[in-house]
Amino acid sequence: MDHPHRRLNPLTNEYILVSPHRIKRPWLGQTEPLQSINLPKYDPDCYLCPGNRRSNGEQNPSYNHTFTFENDFAAVLPPPLPSPPPPPHPFLTCQPIHGACDVVVFHPRHDLTLSDLPLHDIESVIDEWTRIYQMRGAEQGIKYVQIFENKGAMMGCSNPHPHAQIWSLSVVPTIAAVELESLIKYSLSHTRWRPCLLCEYAHVELKLQTRVVVLNQSWVAVVPWWATWPFELIVLPYRRHIPCLSDLDVAEKAALADIIARVSRCFDNLFSCSFPYSMGVHQQPIPAQNSTIDVAHIHLHFDPPLLRSATVRKFLVGFELMAEAQRDLTPEEAAVRLRSCSEGLPNVT
Amino acid sequence: MDHPHRRLNPLTNEYILVSPHRIKRPWLGQTEPLQSINLPKYDPDCYLCPGNRRSNGEQNPSYNHTFTFENDFAAVLPPPLPSPPPPPHPFLTCQPIHGACDVVVFHPRHDLTLSDLPLHDIESVIDEWTRIYQMRGAEQGIKYVQIFENKGAMMGCSNPHPHAQIWSLSVVPTIAAVELESLIKYSLSHTRWRPCLLCEYAHVELKLQTRVVVLNQSWVAVVPWWATWPFELIVLPYRRHIPCLSDLDVAEKAALADIIARVSRCFDNLFSCSFPYSMGVHQQPIPAQNSTIDVAHIHLHFDPPLLRSATVRKFLVGFELMAEAQRDLTPEEAAVRLRSCSEGLPNVT
Ligand SMILES: O=P(O)(O)O[C@H]1O[C@H](CO)[C@@H](O)[C@H](O)[C@H]1O
Ligand SMILES: O=P(O)(O)O[C@H]1O[C@H](CO)[C@@H](O)[C@H](O)[C@H]1O
Repeated sequence: MDHPHRRLNPLTNEYILVSPHRIKRPWLGQTEPLQSINLPKYDPDCYLCPGNRRSNGEQNPSYNHTFTFENDFAAVLPPPLPSPPPPPHPFLTCQPIHGACDVVVFHPRHDLTLSDLPLHDIESVIDEWTRIYQMRGAEQGIKYVQIFENKGAMMGCSNPHPHAQIWSLSVVPTIAAVELESLIKYSLSHTRWRPCLLCEYAHVELKLQTRVVVLNQSWVAVVPWWATWPFELIVLPYRRHIPCLSDLDVAEKAALADIIARVSRCFDNLFSCSFPYSMGVHQQPIPAQNSTIDVAHIHLHFDPPLLRSATVRKFLVGFELMAEAQRDLTPEEAAVRLRSCSEGLPNVT
Repeated sequence: MDHPHRRLNPLTNEYILVSPHRIKRPWLGQTEPLQSINLPKYDPDCYLCPGNRRSNGEQNPSYNHTFTFENDFAAVLPPPLPSPPPPPHPFLTCQPIHGACDVVVFHPRHDLTLSDLPLHDIESVIDEWTRIYQMRGAEQGIKYVQIFENKGAMMGCSNPHPHAQIWSLSVVPTIAAVELESLIKYSLSHTRWRPCLLCEYAHVELKLQTRVVVLNQSWVAVVPWWATWPFELIVLPYRRHIPCLSDLDVAEKAALADIIARVSRCFDNLFSCSFPYSMGVHQQPIPAQNSTIDVAHIHLHFDPPLLRSATVRKFLVGFELMAEAQRDLTPEEAAVRLRSCSEGLPNVT
């Protein structure tokens, strides 16, 4: 495995080119600014802090746990929408879409990320995600609720006050749809054994241990066999098949908060910085009458860009945009390095 | 079309979420450093300049046109390779891959990009791409030759001396394979009319003109209906079906040099800077005995990251990594703005 080889991502059916020796080349390219880390507990100019005004003039409440509001520049809008004009050619078809974009602020404190928050505050965040998943899921025509977090300026986040976004859509978006299709195909051809691709995958990884980074009583965090980003993780429940947030029992929810905290601290400790990433929750689409969709097995993807240090990232560019994903160290090596990072409270520089 | 809607990319079968009003939101996030533009004609520290030494100790010749060498940190290596161990589980299968990585320096001048080079020098670059495509294609087991350019530090380029890379592989990589599959499917169901998806697409765009940015006697540059990057372009021949570089006649090659020059200048003029992008050539895989593969129609993708100015880029992050591509202005609007940029020699700041 020291030689270049390819691995298949069974969720997307895409290959990844693994070139382990590439990490040895010298890096003369762009470096990233270190994130400002001495954030104040409260920033009078932050539009997410309690009591401050947002750009539309509204005043935030003086909240104590999470705080949710509708994005002032939402990427999707509520119905009714004008129907698109008839296309001049089948290639030029517009598909209508409606929905809503919510912002979920994790905590009143401007400076506390998921690595710093007490577990019960992370549980409050999970509760809020669950509430929005159910509330938006009950709205007319909503088919998918995408929860995600962009952390760090390097990942396009424009406000360091920790928050997630939830985009609820009248369609199942491309990547979720591709993953679901793979799960359905797998379950149809593996009816007699574990019929869930991700349950089976968690089982295999737990047996081998090589790519496991964090484990607790319900969840496991693994650098997936097919990782694209240098220190990519997938976090999934391994004891039973769980389609969505609403299906978590009290212990599973507490364990999710625990593994999120431990993963975040591993990340922060790796390069002694507030580790940037994009995180997303994949789970069951909104049921309606479609019974095949309980193949979904809830999981979180963490896609962090850093490769060599707090200031040197991986660029997924020319070859990756035109041909296929390419990585510079093996997922097994990434797992060893992440495991070696203490899970204590991070000591960020 | 002022409302959010989705468009389908018929090459990849992926949807793009178009949210035209998002360009209006204020941007408080990361800005990018302006690229240093006062580059010297010759840089004694550049490992691509004529006569200088590379990291492996070899001395570059004092070349006059292009200069090609094998990448010292190649992502794929020549055969023979050790065969991968038998997988402990079908999920954990390694696919062997071999190949070679070449670097093609465009010109001895450290400071001249494709926007600045005389047309005959761009033709020399195309000649060199063609030579490598044929040479590597004749090597044992090579199935695909991926030509690409990462331009600008923002796109992971570690040396501003203009150059492309060519990765030749014993497999057809994921994205090229997906595009080819779409072309094959299309041709099978459109046997009586134009059987090439891209010939038909070029025809439609030329009739409508709305997304056309540059046109010459053989090639057209279009912001595709399904553009993901803000000012993405696809450049393709529209007069006849052309599978690969080797099939270009003299006039078509001259016209390719012309449209590359004009596209690059449009880009540079848009935000008065040396415009960063990743560019890639998609064309016919290496034939072997497979006769279906002449469905390939050569085209160039330009994926530029800038959105608002020379220092504010689009981040394809949380929603885009987890759900689907999302853009903040319509492709039609992008085409209008690009068309309005003079095609004269750029006046970069
Ligand atoms: O080969 P280079 O220019 O050193 O590296 C650049 O292009 C490669 C191919 O797209 C990427 O894998 C690298 O992340 C990027 O920095
Ligand atoms: O919504 P934000 O945080 O302003 O914007 C960020 O996340 C969005 C969703 O991933 C992206 O489309 C934007 O490019 C990014 O800057």
